[in-house]
Amino acid sequence: MSADPQAHQRRGADAVRAAVAASLAGDLTRAAAVLRVTPQDVDDVLHAQFAGGVGEVLTKGLGASPGAAVGQVHFTADACVAAVDRGELVVLVRDETSPGDVHGMQVAEGILTARGGLASHAAVVARAWGIPAVVGAEGLRIHADHCTVGRTTVREGDVISLDGGTGEVVLGERGLAAAEPPAELWRLLTWADEIRAGHLVVRANADTAADARRAVELGAEGIGLCRTEHMFLAEDRLQIVRAMILASTPEREAEALEQLREAQRADFVEILTVMAGRPVTVRLLDPPMHEFLPSIGELQVTAAQRQLTSEEAALLEAAELWREDNPMLGTRGVRLAVLKPGLYAMQVRALLQAAADVAAGGGAPVVEVMVPLTVGREELALARRWVEEALADAAGDGPALQVSIGTMIETPRAALVAGELAEVADFFSFGTNDLTQMTFGFSRDDVEARLVPAYLEAGLLARNPFETLDRPGVGELVQLAVARGRAARPRLKMGVCGEHGGDPESIRFFQAAGLDYVSCSPYRVPVARLAAAQAVLSANGTSEEAPF
Amino acid sequence: MSADPQAHQRRGADAVRAAVAASLAGDLTRAAAVLRVTPQDVDDVLHAQFAGGVGEVLTKGLGASPGAAVGQVHFTADACVAAVDRGELVVLVRDETSPGDVHGMQVAEGILTARGGLASHAAVVARAWGIPAVVGAEGLRIHADHCTVGRTTVREGDVISLDGGTGEVVLGERGLAAAEPPAELWRLLTWADEIRAGHLVVRANADTAADARRAVELGAEGIGLCRTEHMFLAEDRLQIVRAMILASTPEREAEALEQLREAQRADFVEILTVMAGRPVTVRLLDPPMHEFLPSIGELQVTAAQRQLTSEEAALLEAAELWREDNPMLGTRGVRLAVLKPGLYAMQVRALLQAAADVAAGGGAPVVEVMVPLTVGREELALARRWVEEALADAAGDGPALQVSIGTMIETPRAALVAGELAEVADFFSFGTNDLTQMTFGFSRDDVEARLVPAYLEAGLLARNPFETLDRPGVGELVQLAVARGRAARPRLKMGVCGEHGGDPESIRFFQAAGLDYVSCSPYRVPVARLAAAQAVLSANGTSEEAPF
Repeated sequence: MSADPQAHQRRGADAVRAAVAASLAGDLTRAAAVLRVTPQDVDDVLHAQFAGGVGEVLTKGLGASPGAAVGQVHFTADACVAAVDRGELVVLVRDETSPGDVHGMQVAEGILTARGGLASHAAVVARAWGIPAVVGAEGLRIHADHCTVGRTTVREGDVISLDGGTGEVVLGERGLAAAEPPAELWRLLTWADEIRAGHLVVRANADTAADARRAVELGAEGIGLCRTEHMFLAEDRLQIVRAMILASTPEREAEALEQLREAQRADFVEILTVMAGRPVTVRLLDPPMHEFLPSIGELQVTAAQRQLTSEEAALLEAAELWREDNPMLGTRGVRLAVLKPGLYAMQVRALLQAAADVAAGGGAPVVEVMVPLTVGREELALARRWVEEALADAAGDGPALQVSIGTMIETPRAALVAGELAEVADFFSFGTNDLTQMTFGFSRDDVEARLVPAYLEAGLLARNPFETLDRPGVGELVQLAVARGRAARPRLKMGVCGEHGGDPESIRFFQAAGLDYVSCSPYRVPVARLAAAQAVLSANGTSEEAPF
Repeated sequence: MSADPQAHQRRGADAVRAAVAASLAGDLTRAAAVLRVTPQDVDDVLHAQFAGGVGEVLTKGLGASPGAAVGQVHFTADACVAAVDRGELVVLVRDETSPGDVHGMQVAEGILTARGGLASHAAVVARAWGIPAVVGAEGLRIHADHCTVGRTTVREGDVISLDGGTGEVVLGERGLAAAEPPAELWRLLTWADEIRAGHLVVRANADTAADARRAVELGAEGIGLCRTEHMFLAEDRLQIVRAMILASTPEREAEALEQLREAQRADFVEILTVMAGRPVTVRLLDPPMHEFLPSIGELQVTAAQRQLTSEEAALLEAAELWREDNPMLGTRGVRLAVLKPGLYAMQVRALLQAAADVAAGGGAPVVEVMVPLTVGREELALARRWVEEALADAAGDGPALQVSIGTMIETPRAALVAGELAEVADFFSFGTNDLTQMTFGFSRDDVEARLVPAYLEAGLLARNPFETLDRPGVGELVQLAVARGRAARPRLKMGVCGEHGGDPESIRFFQAAGLDYVSCSPYRVPVARLAAAQAVLSANGTSEEAPF
């Protein structure tokens, strides 16, 4: 731990103030001012830091969402909510998080997990909400009311402090310096926006109206990835989704889909209203079916203790039917939609009706429908037909809607056959998280915390490929897909919506590769705006030494 | 089901006899005779077929290992062994198989599984042993002493018949016509060998001395893939492997490794003796750690019923520590060796000592050490260092050994960075099963039985990519790797050891891509010999119409 972590915050703020002042005084061009501040400076001034005091280092994990946090440890989401209701500040400590934990994550000061990598559920959600998080913490073993690291035991209610930038977790309370970005930051970012205008757009990944609002405040020009999973996983929705899965007749299935459609329509109206005029890329349902079903292991343990209810037995049967050994490579995304054709049609109808609602209210919804996990032309053509049929059905209901249809490029095969995909796509969005997983054969949740650190230490990897895009492997697939896609359709719009969209070095690569936009977590948007402008300047041969 | 399946066998035998007779009579060149027989003809005459009678079709799965079989149904390997001891013919019916089932598979007439694809454990083992098998059978639900398909129930001891070529499973006993390949077949295959000599070598995948012997009998010129997993999974070995995993001190770990080394040395001596003079590619340990540990679910259910023993508790803790969400993309192959550095060193020492033993006895072992799951140069260079250190240690113990060191190309990244891998590799072996999985993002065990049939039916895939190599995607990666590997090291030896090595259409592609050898299950070697010759002829522009 550095002697005075708060120094980073001060240094960052000083750098921002000095660059802006020098430019206003006429000593630097705006471009030179933008180049003088580092993305790390921006990151430092935007997040709380440890302000002093020392504590025993408990463990170190991956710094998954920057900022420092202090709170009392709780091991379940419910316990966090109860503690916050009592007025405590809490840190949620879990083996790993799942959608069932989000109510606890939402109220936590910080999040700590024993498993998972930078693209795990905990990391992605924490970044989206700007909550400091450390994931994949070494040696952390979690039990019902305590956890251990080696011989040290931490009980429920004990205080810990964590730094989501460095990944350090400390026993006891450390002082915090709140984030106080200098006013000059926002002026500097406006200059950055001028520089990158017409070159590289910055969007945000946002799944809810609240996320979308925050994204716009932080300067996002659109939503590059609106995941629709949470629309299925909220407590009240899950029952309907399960009714759909367990439906014994097509009529019951259709009835459940109809309920889901109404619910999703309302979600989409909110988001499209917030984003009015700005593009919103909606990814159709992506996760495997079993994520909507209870754990087989838990139900089996229950069955060993008592007779299952008939609903539990039905859920266990469904969970076994949909069980997969490698769900990351399993029946999800467009594959699930091929097996359950009503699913995507329902989502698209909900989306188009929402767009019509917003347009009728004077809004200007710009909708981009995105199909995940495509591997070939025919698959995308089929999904495109579903969307176009829904569009045709919706036509005449109101003003004409502006809708484009595209696909994620997230399997290596999709990158290789990008030419044929472009024949039926209006846009590509590179899902570099999954593309990295499949190109390396690295399951991020399994290897990022366990293997990647060992590989970095042994010099077998130069960088964590989930943090900074791997140029020789994944990067070549991106370049191939850009070239082949544009050869087939010169005006194909292309962007990236993986976590790499918020990483400055990766942004430089994406700019050079010819992408139109990057999309990242809302809280990374300011850094991405600066990094995108710097990428444009360096591509133009502008350096701070030779300001134009 | 066709009216007379036996007709295929007769037609195949007639085609072989006619081609050989015409050539002997001077009416056809040998090349033309080789072109006149189809790989399917050879497949048909080499395997038993249904000979008549009809039965109710119970279900249909993937034809995973050709030939027809009839037997009484049993649901565990132990029950199969007991039934065979009583003189019964048995069909093993399982949800899916694992290494713990091999004693039952070994004695079964046929194998039927509810889950898994053409590259599942059941399919791979069945093909290796020439046992007819149907996997991923639709709608088959398996219980303790019976199974059901829809409303039909099959009880333990009931007779079923299955066709491992078509994937059909029939209730009751159908007549069988044994495989009786005509004597002319072997002559024709000798001609095929003459044609492909110097162009495309055919090897076999064989893990034991018995497999190796069979492979040589069927014409294999070497072993392209000797998996070392079974050397860890046999009942007596598993205890040692678990002792290694649970070892609390480096000394205990070393002690367990030493016991494993002695056991593996004996295995390698047997195989190298059988293959003396022919190359043997030994793949260092590939599967993830958890395959050597008991099931978490079963232990949790046990824990719900009674106190676990201290050994069970330790195994449960280890299983949880090594648990992975996507083991296919997890810590296995060379990755595991980086975390447990003693492991590969032990295997290589055992192998080199075995080679020295065989050489001392006058044999001529040709050893190729193969590193699985590589993603980059540094990783392979490290593994190469381990092997070279063991070689240096072994030098002086006896005659100089002929050892080369290479890698699987089975991750998309390995194919893309093949140029840098070639700097530290003597050979490449394309693991097209895994390469297909990662390029498509298709877990073979999860999607091959569920999704691939639906995709074929909907026209979203032209072929099952696990059966016939996908040219636009996986094929391009193979071509890239060949070109980049040879550019870096012109004499780099290259082959394929995935299941595609036995598929005639894929063999044509591999020949055109410039590979030196294909390697497949022993029972597919005759088909591969014919297909390889035909590929060479067609590359030379020879067709049956214009014999040379």
